[in-house]
Amino acid sequence: MYLEKINGPVDVKKLNVAELKTLAGEMREGLFNRLTVHGGHFGPNFGMVEATIALHYVFNSPKDKFVFDVSHQTYPHKMLTGRAYGYLYPERFNEVSGYSDPEESEHDHFIIGHTSTSISLATGLAKGRDVNGRNENIVAIIGDGSLSGGEALEGLDTAGEMNTNLIIVVNDNEQSIAEVHGGLYKNLDELRATNGKASTNLFKAMGLDYMYVEEGNDIEKLIEAFSKVKDIDHPIVVHIHTQKGMGYAPAVADRESWHWCMPFNRETGEPTITFEGEDYSELTGDLILDKMEKDKSVVFVTAAVPANVGFPKANREKAGSQYIDVGIAEEQGIAMCSGIAKNGGKAIFGTNATFIQRVYDQISHDVCINKSPVTIILNYTSVFGLNDVTHLGIYTISMLSNIPEFVYMCPTNKEEYLAMLDWSIEQKEHPVLISMPGNGVIPASYPVDKNYDEINKYQVCENGSEIAILALGDFFQLGQETAKEIEAKSGKKVTLINPRYASGLDEKLLEELKANHKTIITLEDGILDGGFGQRVASFYGSSDIKVFNYGLKKEFYDRYDVTELLKANKLTKEQIAEDVLK
Amino acid sequence: MYLEKINGPVDVKKLNVAELKTLAGEMREGLFNRLTVHGGHFGPNFGMVEATIALHYVFNSPKDKFVFDVSHQTYPHKMLTGRAYGYLYPERFNEVSGYSDPEESEHDHFIIGHTSTSISLATGLAKGRDVNGRNENIVAIIGDGSLSGGEALEGLDTAGEMNTNLIIVVNDNEQSIAEVHGGLYKNLDELRATNGKASTNLFKAMGLDYMYVEEGNDIEKLIEAFSKVKDIDHPIVVHIHTQKGMGYAPAVADRESWHWCMPFNRETGEPTITFEGEDYSELTGDLILDKMEKDKSVVFVTAAVPANVGFPKANREKAGSQYIDVGIAEEQGIAMCSGIAKNGGKAIFGTNATFIQRVYDQISHDVCINKSPVTIILNYTSVFGLNDVTHLGIYTISMLSNIPEFVYMCPTNKEEYLAMLDWSIEQKEHPVLISMPGNGVIPASYPVDKNYDEINKYQVCENGSEIAILALGDFFQLGQETAKEIEAKSGKKVTLINPRYASGLDEKLLEELKANHKTIITLEDGILDGGFGQRVASFYGSSDIKVFNYGLKKEFYDRYDVTELLKANKLTKEQIAEDVLK
Repeated sequence: MYLEKINGPVDVKKLNVAELKTLAGEMREGLFNRLTVHGGHFGPNFGMVEATIALHYVFNSPKDKFVFDVSHQTYPHKMLTGRAYGYLYPERFNEVSGYSDPEESEHDHFIIGHTSTSISLATGLAKGRDVNGRNENIVAIIGDGSLSGGEALEGLDTAGEMNTNLIIVVNDNEQSIAEVHGGLYKNLDELRATNGKASTNLFKAMGLDYMYVEEGNDIEKLIEAFSKVKDIDHPIVVHIHTQKGMGYAPAVADRESWHWCMPFNRETGEPTITFEGEDYSELTGDLILDKMEKDKSVVFVTAAVPANVGFPKANREKAGSQYIDVGIAEEQGIAMCSGIAKNGGKAIFGTNATFIQRVYDQISHDVCINKSPVTIILNYTSVFGLNDVTHLGIYTISMLSNIPEFVYMCPTNKEEYLAMLDWSIEQKEHPVLISMPGNGVIPASYPVDKNYDEINKYQVCENGSEIAILALGDFFQLGQETAKEIEAKSGKKVTLINPRYASGLDEKLLEELKANHKTIITLEDGILDGGFGQRVASFYGSSDIKVFNYGLKKEFYDRYDVTELLKANKLTKEQIAEDVLK
Repeated sequence: MYLEKINGPVDVKKLNVAELKTLAGEMREGLFNRLTVHGGHFGPNFGMVEATIALHYVFNSPKDKFVFDVSHQTYPHKMLTGRAYGYLYPERFNEVSGYSDPEESEHDHFIIGHTSTSISLATGLAKGRDVNGRNENIVAIIGDGSLSGGEALEGLDTAGEMNTNLIIVVNDNEQSIAEVHGGLYKNLDELRATNGKASTNLFKAMGLDYMYVEEGNDIEKLIEAFSKVKDIDHPIVVHIHTQKGMGYAPAVADRESWHWCMPFNRETGEPTITFEGEDYSELTGDLILDKMEKDKSVVFVTAAVPANVGFPKANREKAGSQYIDVGIAEEQGIAMCSGIAKNGGKAIFGTNATFIQRVYDQISHDVCINKSPVTIILNYTSVFGLNDVTHLGIYTISMLSNIPEFVYMCPTNKEEYLAMLDWSIEQKEHPVLISMPGNGVIPASYPVDKNYDEINKYQVCENGSEIAILALGDFFQLGQETAKEIEAKSGKKVTLINPRYASGLDEKLLEELKANHKTIITLEDGILDGGFGQRVASFYGSSDIKVFNYGLKKEFYDRYDVTELLKANKLTKEQIAEDVLK
């Protein structure tokens, strides 16, 4: 096996084209090895095997610098840069992450997990090189799905006036996560159809030089193309046409499902782990589709991640023109929703929490200043959600709950989530965010309101004295357990409150609590800094009430064990009870 | 005078072309009226007089809906929609704002002040129209300078696949605020040079239909063009070539200086109000230029607002290739800085606080997760800064101080600002934000450190007991005064602390304060929610220390009187002293 002996790009350069082809086969076996057991990004990596071999054959990494967009297609790159063990030996799978990481290898220059950043980062590397008088090649590798993101388009525009070496490899596999969307993809179609000769050319319009390579999975052709642009003295786009999921028939046939995979059986293509029961994504899709059927003004917008927020393919088909995927373009998505809401539509935007970071300004400026009644649904806001450092949702309360006019709702159970969603879509007064609970679909244990017009009205679930727990969102169940723990240890009945709104205080209730409470506990599923609990602490700051805030310490966490992380942050009922009763 | 009799677009339609030309002259007089006395956006409005007349002549606002990008060019639109009084009668100038506002008129559909949003908002209006089965025209009007913004490019891309009426008027005046930057402007040049015939065409590459109008200040030609696209059944870009500042020679000659003006003398073009003495922008430019001369790796990046952060034209020329204006493209600017910092450059990014809202994700993902030692300098973070609702900087601490790894510095005086800036540029460990004080250039009244490596180390300026004031950033002087007020009223010596870092706590010091203090006062120039003070309140939440947080209530404020706003938020020394001593 060649792959076992590849310790770095130098070893790739020693092989001839026939050997490189064999290597490509071995690398796909490596991908199967890991992905059948571990899951991960499938399609992007299977499609990029040949291009990655050619890049390492032609360029001299780490002197020449590759920036992989999203970096979810870096598995082949990792295999060729001393990390093949992460694909060959199951016991070492956990030693490599799913994204690029400079701490793993000198061949990785950034931790990257969001889309559309590679060109911009590469322009910076190029400028840093130039001011230091060096001459390495800077190469950004970006998938076509990522091109629609504002940062990528801004990056192309800036690259278009740089007079220096910069190579932008556009890996065109005719697919985003779901379908590609946006007018620019018509141009990519045209360019592919004309072997790159079409007179209309987005990249040229941005001021860039351009080259087309139809055979994006042909090592020889790719080596030829990359050799031509190596050491070029100006920016150029090398548009390569690849096959997403190449080498596995089910992945070629269904590119969306195989963008990312759970552990699976190679023979059947079926996942080996399955989740039973309800999930919030499905519940969301059902509720919205039901509304859409009765009301043509209901519109659901997503930015390329429909399946995570209720719209797998079947639902998209049912929704028809009431469903819009703007592609990877969150800014567009949010502003469009504001426009829909201002012109008589009921606009819902859904995405993963980590991607909402892209639109602080659009939420504030385009939506909240204008009081547009847009509903934003977020998946994975929770510590129980995605746990790669680039994909954490635990900063969301801190980031968004402090924007004026924004109503940030944290449901605690299934019925409450659905009631809040229903209310939000129908009301006309407020921009609203609803956070999908991250701790499973749990039924209500207290009555659930239908109407949430009285903003910042908390729900008192249990009336006690001395100690009150404000347990926000999906930490409500932890609040319930903690109340029981404290009651068991102290014999005192604890007041349990469901705050429901992360964005404001029920000042009347908090004032009333002063009468017969001495201690307030806040729990929230997110970092403490800038969050819900600190606002409560401030409210009581000059009173005699003691406030204990529980949540996560402000840090970047990577691939954590959730049980350990919670314990380290004193987020167990035992720790809290002990703390408070001290 | 025609203008006095124009109560709405209906009255515009009654005039013939000769009369409309006279009207244009009257409108420019109206602009002079207001701008010589009141100041405001000059060039954008003088250039858009004819186009605005033609739009109102052809379309039927408010049924047909105009969305003006940034909306700083809406003065002519306001004149034609019943608000001419705001330009004719000095006593009524304050009744119209400098931006569009639905509360002012049914002809305005959004409050807008940031760039690059109009196309996206318009796609939403179009969708809202379609799902409700109506058929009005939706028209976005966007300046060429705004096109480089990610949201605008995403908007073009989405528009490019909509099969419905949407008209995008690109007002090309060959100018952003400063020079235009980015490869796409080469394409606009080409399109102008070929009367729109160039085969390379950005808009077509985005999937859009296209029309070019060279005579962008000719009412007749514009009426002809707009009539052709009225009621069109698909999206089209109407690219019009206008003259920024048309009708005033100094503004045509120096488009950058006349983008926005102070009150001025029409004969001489000289401002009638001048500011004496130092300002932070100038101090910033001086320090960075000095560094650049000694160190070729120092690079300053801005997104189209160089003059506000130290780089007026003369400084840009001195900086040469160490200065980069990426155009209106903050995402690109921040990511590029991360790349520069990771490849041996010393990267500084400067902009106005309100525009940093665009880059929460880039600061978190591209910079902070990667610990890129980028320095970000912000102007107008303060309540004393810009006071239009779309341009407030008072949310910045809340938005950015809670991002892990980010060091958010709030200098309290001139020497400290310069020392922090110097330190930040030279250090290699931290992404840093430095907030320019908003309350004038005030000399240091306590010793200033040179080294800030010890992150979150606060400075104790006065040692007292019982009461301690943590006075952050440009509220330090308020802290000094408040200390004196409390001392005068209580006879007790107050501890005065300069926290310096908004992003973290000096836990050791806060712990020590417990020994001989009972009350902690925090002061910060920003909203309280998610800010510095609430973090302090949380720290002391379970102790006996009383904490009083002072700052602004979480709200959108518009064109406020700063003295009144501070009083309404209890931000005077007398109010604080009274509160605390109660």
